[in-house]
Amino acid sequence: MILWKGKATMFRVNENYLKLPVNYLFSNIEKKVEAFSKAHPTLKHRVIRLGIGDVTQPLIPAIIKTLHEAVDEMGQMETFHGYAPDFGYEFLRTAIMKNDYQGRGCNIEADEIFVSDGAKSDCSNIQEIFSEDSKISVCDPVYPVYLDSNVMAGRTGVWNSQTKMFSKVIYMPCIRENNFSPEFPKEIPNLIYFCYPNNPTGSMLTKAQLQEWVDYANCVGAVILYDSAYEAYISEENIPHTIYECEGARTCAIEFRSFSKNAGFTGVRLGFTVIPKDLKSGNVSLHNLWRRRHATKYNGAPYIIQKAGEAVYSSEGQSQIKEQIVYYMKNARVICEELKSVGYTVFGGVNAPYIWIKTPAGMNSWEFFDYLLENANVVGTPGSGFGPSGEGYFRLTAFGTYENIVEAIERIKKM
Amino acid sequence: MILWKGKATMFRVNENYLKLPVNYLFSNIEKKVEAFSKAHPTLKHRVIRLGIGDVTQPLIPAIIKTLHEAVDEMGQMETFHGYAPDFGYEFLRTAIMKNDYQGRGCNIEADEIFVSDGAKSDCSNIQEIFSEDSKISVCDPVYPVYLDSNVMAGRTGVWNSQTKMFSKVIYMPCIRENNFSPEFPKEIPNLIYFCYPNNPTGSMLTKAQLQEWVDYANCVGAVILYDSAYEAYISEENIPHTIYECEGARTCAIEFRSFSKNAGFTGVRLGFTVIPKDLKSGNVSLHNLWRRRHATKYNGAPYIIQKAGEAVYSSEGQSQIKEQIVYYMKNARVICEELKSVGYTVFGGVNAPYIWIKTPAGMNSWEFFDYLLENANVVGTPGSGFGPSGEGYFRLTAFGTYENIVEAIERIKKM
Repeated sequence: MILWKGKATMFRVNENYLKLPVNYLFSNIEKKVEAFSKAHPTLKHRVIRLGIGDVTQPLIPAIIKTLHEAVDEMGQMETFHGYAPDFGYEFLRTAIMKNDYQGRGCNIEADEIFVSDGAKSDCSNIQEIFSEDSKISVCDPVYPVYLDSNVMAGRTGVWNSQTKMFSKVIYMPCIRENNFSPEFPKEIPNLIYFCYPNNPTGSMLTKAQLQEWVDYANCVGAVILYDSAYEAYISEENIPHTIYECEGARTCAIEFRSFSKNAGFTGVRLGFTVIPKDLKSGNVSLHNLWRRRHATKYNGAPYIIQKAGEAVYSSEGQSQIKEQIVYYMKNARVICEELKSVGYTVFGGVNAPYIWIKTPAGMNSWEFFDYLLENANVVGTPGSGFGPSGEGYFRLTAFGTYENIVEAIERIKKM
Repeated sequence: MILWKGKATMFRVNENYLKLPVNYLFSNIEKKVEAFSKAHPTLKHRVIRLGIGDVTQPLIPAIIKTLHEAVDEMGQMETFHGYAPDFGYEFLRTAIMKNDYQGRGCNIEADEIFVSDGAKSDCSNIQEIFSEDSKISVCDPVYPVYLDSNVMAGRTGVWNSQTKMFSKVIYMPCIRENNFSPEFPKEIPNLIYFCYPNNPTGSMLTKAQLQEWVDYANCVGAVILYDSAYEAYISEENIPHTIYECEGARTCAIEFRSFSKNAGFTGVRLGFTVIPKDLKSGNVSLHNLWRRRHATKYNGAPYIIQKAGEAVYSSEGQSQIKEQIVYYMKNARVICEELKSVGYTVFGGVNAPYIWIKTPAGMNSWEFFDYLLENANVVGTPGSGFGPSGEGYFRLTAFGTYENIVEAIERIKKM
């Protein structure tokens, strides 16, 4: 072996990762459920999971048919597809443009849409195109990905284990007192993360409320990062389906969408991000930066899966996925009504597949998690896992089967 | 509209992106080909693409069959699959462990393997888990993704448009004089990017050479980031198929693998990364940091595609993909032999699907690109696009159809 001389410095890690206070929320839940199942092998099969927001209904026939056709194409030289275009196939981008945007009167072009493997990747990667000292603001409680991806990038300052907050993050409490709607923060942020319909509280902004935020962002020079993964669950009037329904959103908003929850693609992986060409910092276009990132760090969504995405927009596809959404929202209604009937205080579940429950008897969120797991063998998500203002709350999802939902609620009512 | 008072600072972008000197190499080529096709509509159909490393053979029957079966599973409630496990299904990780590692006598466990949507994503994302001031070294010429992902992260310093180098990057020239093998650099790096079989030069390290680098990395405290996407093309003895064949690699090496080139998955998207649990900085495990990244920023590869990956390892799958590799390597042989016969100086093409050609008549790489496109209507990749030491070279890939390869070579010979 050769000996190397000279000044060698051992490689070092990204120490921002070490600031992450706990393990990823859903991994933690998984560990707890595994431990419970090990300790109670006879109860293992009884566990009903209404924790993670994973769907249970199979893919609709229109999508299955399309997948089979696309697979056959991949088996023949003449119709085989290699690398997909970096930003998605034209057929899918056009279908998205027409159905999700122009059909709602929004001026979004196909080449402003970036197809990807899902909203989670895009939501966590988007921060890369902003400066390291960008000031971020998040709702509290919040989907952990927005925050954790910024912790990893070093934007969040120091973790305070007392307040359970990072020193440099602007938290916007979404609590019962403000109807779970964020208020304009005292300190002005550069980036504002929103998720509507909201995960985890199930709350919604009206069009007038969202318009105020768009005006605010344009006024202060902030960008709204708008995660609209649950758009398909909106049932009420006067609720915006996309932020581009608001005037001025083209100069201040990026939107993330997913096929996971409208078409059951959690295990199929497809989503997209819209960055209008008008969104600029000086003469630098965010659209162009994201193009560059996509081309350098991503290699396109699979052809067969983009074909499946296109099938979602066929008339057959649309009517079949609508049935699934009706099914899940019936679950949501059952959870809300039955829990209310035995005295629980319950929010959400009307424009979102999430039900946000006030934990009973002064239990904190993880105490209620354990209580529910042990006594009803039902898995939910502790509200405190989404942020300090989530403490004392608990999230259930409507994505189970109807039979499981009914069974779970019966057990909870009996506790 | 409400007026907001207070100190507002306009959001700012990640200015590292603005240091990227040119557009992504392959996007540039695409633009040139489009312009040529527009200018010569009658020649458009004659263009033969041996530029980007995209496969042309369809998916093998064993994979098509598995894909159909997996699609059917997704259409039934009982066999539907939602979110995949964060790090990949056990069935695939086990198949990889047995076939690619333990079958070669390498001590790699299934839970050291992270399944992903491809080596490009992993190669570009891996730098995130290292400190911002990590000193990187790359071969020159190099697959642009390693370098560009570090430019975006701010590690590379200032671009010098004269030398076409970044001030903080350690370049390891791989030129004819050193047989296209990197030498130990004067300055000691923290991270060493390697791609073997090499893209773009088609060169290879022997096991003894790679063992020296492993010893070096362990001695100086560096990490080798080993991209082995073209492993299936190794035809000679004494060439390592994985870096873990070298003693000590578990404490200094991360390996990236892909299904794109062995099984034609460029448009299917599947790859994996191996991070041994022994790889640590002090008491911080890189394996754990990557786990955290994967769980936070990625949502798993699609079930149906992981099943397709498993089918690659079936005995039927293995014999069918072997045929495809033989097919492509026959192409490589034709290119090498025919071009040599008319006086070209040619490298690679023996353990790799890439042929690295010295440009003739003093032309630089882009001049030869234009010359070839205009006179033979053949698209290749300019060597200079891979780094300054690539100037005066040109890359052709063996991934075309045999008929196209023969036709392209005939045209080149007639020029």
